[in-house]
Amino acid sequence: MPYISKRASVGSGTKFESECAIYGESVIGERCFIGSFCTIGHPRRASLLEHKGKPLSNLDEISGGSRIGNDVVLRSHSVVYELATLEDGVETGHFVLIREETKVGKRTRVGSYSVLDGKVSVGSQVSIQSGVYLPPGSVVEDEVFLGPFVTVTNDLYPPSPVVTGVKVERGAVIGARAILLAGVTVGREAVVAAGAVVTRDVEPESFVMGVPARKVGDRRSYEEKKKRFLQNELR
Amino acid sequence: MPYISKRASVGSGTKFESECAIYGESVIGERCFIGSFCTIGHPRRASLLEHKGKPLSNLDEISGGSRIGNDVVLRSHSVVYELATLEDGVETGHFVLIREETKVGKRTRVGSYSVLDGKVSVGSQVSIQSGVYLPPGSVVEDEVFLGPFVTVTNDLYPPSPVVTGVKVERGAVIGARAILLAGVTVGREAVVAAGAVVTRDVEPESFVMGVPARKVGDRRSYEEKKKRFLQNELR
Amino acid sequence: MPYISKRASVGSGTKFESECAIYGESVIGERCFIGSFCTIGHPRRASLLEHKGKPLSNLDEISGGSRIGNDVVLRSHSVVYELATLEDGVETGHFVLIREETKVGKRTRVGSYSVLDGKVSVGSQVSIQSGVYLPPGSVVEDEVFLGPFVTVTNDLYPPSPVVTGVKVERGAVIGARAILLAGVTVGREAVVAAGAVVTRDVEPESFVMGVPARKVGDRRSYEEKKKRFLQNELR
Repeated sequence: MPYISKRASVGSGTKFESECAIYGESVIGERCFIGSFCTIGHPRRASLLEHKGKPLSNLDEISGGSRIGNDVVLRSHSVVYELATLEDGVETGHFVLIREETKVGKRTRVGSYSVLDGKVSVGSQVSIQSGVYLPPGSVVEDEVFLGPFVTVTNDLYPPSPVVTGVKVERGAVIGARAILLAGVTVGREAVVAAGAVVTRDVEPESFVMGVPARKVGDRRSYEEKKKRFLQNELR
Repeated sequence: MPYISKRASVGSGTKFESECAIYGESVIGERCFIGSFCTIGHPRRASLLEHKGKPLSNLDEISGGSRIGNDVVLRSHSVVYELATLEDGVETGHFVLIREETKVGKRTRVGSYSVLDGKVSVGSQVSIQSGVYLPPGSVVEDEVFLGPFVTVTNDLYPPSPVVTGVKVERGAVIGARAILLAGVTVGREAVVAAGAVVTRDVEPESFVMGVPARKVGDRRSYEEKKKRFLQNELR
Repeated sequence: MPYISKRASVGSGTKFESECAIYGESVIGERCFIGSFCTIGHPRRASLLEHKGKPLSNLDEISGGSRIGNDVVLRSHSVVYELATLEDGVETGHFVLIREETKVGKRTRVGSYSVLDGKVSVGSQVSIQSGVYLPPGSVVEDEVFLGPFVTVTNDLYPPSPVVTGVKVERGAVIGARAILLAGVTVGREAVVAAGAVVTRDVEPESFVMGVPARKVGDRRSYEEKKKRFLQNELR
């Protein structure tokens, strides 16, 4: 049985797989699917710690709620914090963590075990594969592809209190297990190869690889090779 | 209390830790242990999306079920999709995700947080450590060892619709956090060092390391060093 | 509703978010917060396998219990094994796994998806970010910082039965996604850059980077650069 806050609203046609919790003034749209063992509207750290040890029947009372659009799929064992917004058609895998003040744009997919660790901005129609880590301050524009287990950082001199965010511009492709270090911008339509460690800005439409990542080509030649490969494979 | 589909069958001596869900025509063998907050027979993506927004009491109705052998241990917070098969004696950690049309052979162990992301074939007596990622098309033969956080890929030109699977042949050893890029074959009894990035085929019984991985020795010398080390440590 | 063993004790002011399980002779201190879908006192592997298939009402009967101090926060979907000790003020993220015979010191934070995989010793005021892996035999001293997705190994010749632990000495800083190979010691106050692969001991107060990691500076110059950077950013 789902626990749904009296302050929350749930649109028509939305289904809950089984047990889950919707806290605070969460607004959930129509025709959503919410998997088992999910929490929506989890209080952020400061709020939870402030109330720890005080009389408190449950987290519902201190939650500001999340905003979940229409036609959203949130698979099992996922946690969405208060003040997060998932726009229409967002789809997640299992074991996903989306923390406070994060926005995920329309029809974006967030793979299993991925973490949007608070104050993250993700555009629309972005494809985030499994196990991706986006720390606070990360900006991912529309139609970006983030391969499995991409790690983004935000601290140039850890541990420090200054967030130096990474920006991945529209249409860029980041290969599996690449690392994007704090402060870099990956330009529009650029391609970063699997396993690369990106330590400086990547020019738009360039293709980089290696540790540290160096330019080895451009998007046009990448797409030409891809086209030949696909023609060969699919014929 | 576990939810068990009326269409499912559960063998004698099988225990459920507490809450979990068994969907569809799942067949669970004898003497299994199923941890808390697990789902068995979760519908695959196409099926879930097709039914979203339609009248549907729960996922049970649309699940084709999983096949779980005898003496299987599935620890808590794990999800097994429909049309997956776990043979006798398979043992998983916690937070494991095994998606549709995946086969896991006898007495294989799948570590916590590992993902078999659909259409994966894993042999018997394989040791998969924590956090390993195997995408669709991956083939892992018998008695392979996959160290913690090994990542396998399957897309040569991401994002593309063509799956180019990796094959890890019998008895190979893949060190922690190695990456195996789409299409490579790691030969029988080969050893890949921790942190290596494998960009081309690895010969049987060879030992490779580095980024990109290069041959630096063979299995025989690896085993000789290992033997001397163990004799020294265990004496 | 939490399941709390009759053998367990729970201090005053401790709150349970909703469903969870406290097994065996667990002792939980005062003013703790235990999130949904957590298990405390999970039996270790040998114990679970020994009892599989035998009459057993639940895991409670075979659990030796965990020790949880005062003011501990354990967020949702986390699992703590029997014979683990979390001292006062420990705080975890979500999806955390802390296995048997592990000690976590006072006010240490363990990020979401991190694994302390049994027989791990972590000091006080340590900061463990998300997705960190510490295998058996790992020793992390006080005030260490482990960045996101740091992987530590413990097997020089996998797969072998000999544990060769890593030691991270007091005040060291390990950058995101670094790998520390079995047997290395990272000296007091040393800094390891993000993405580095540490294959040999790191001198105290040195700064290393790269694959394999090489010394490129020292802690003093790192702190001087950091200070200038922060002065610039925060002014």
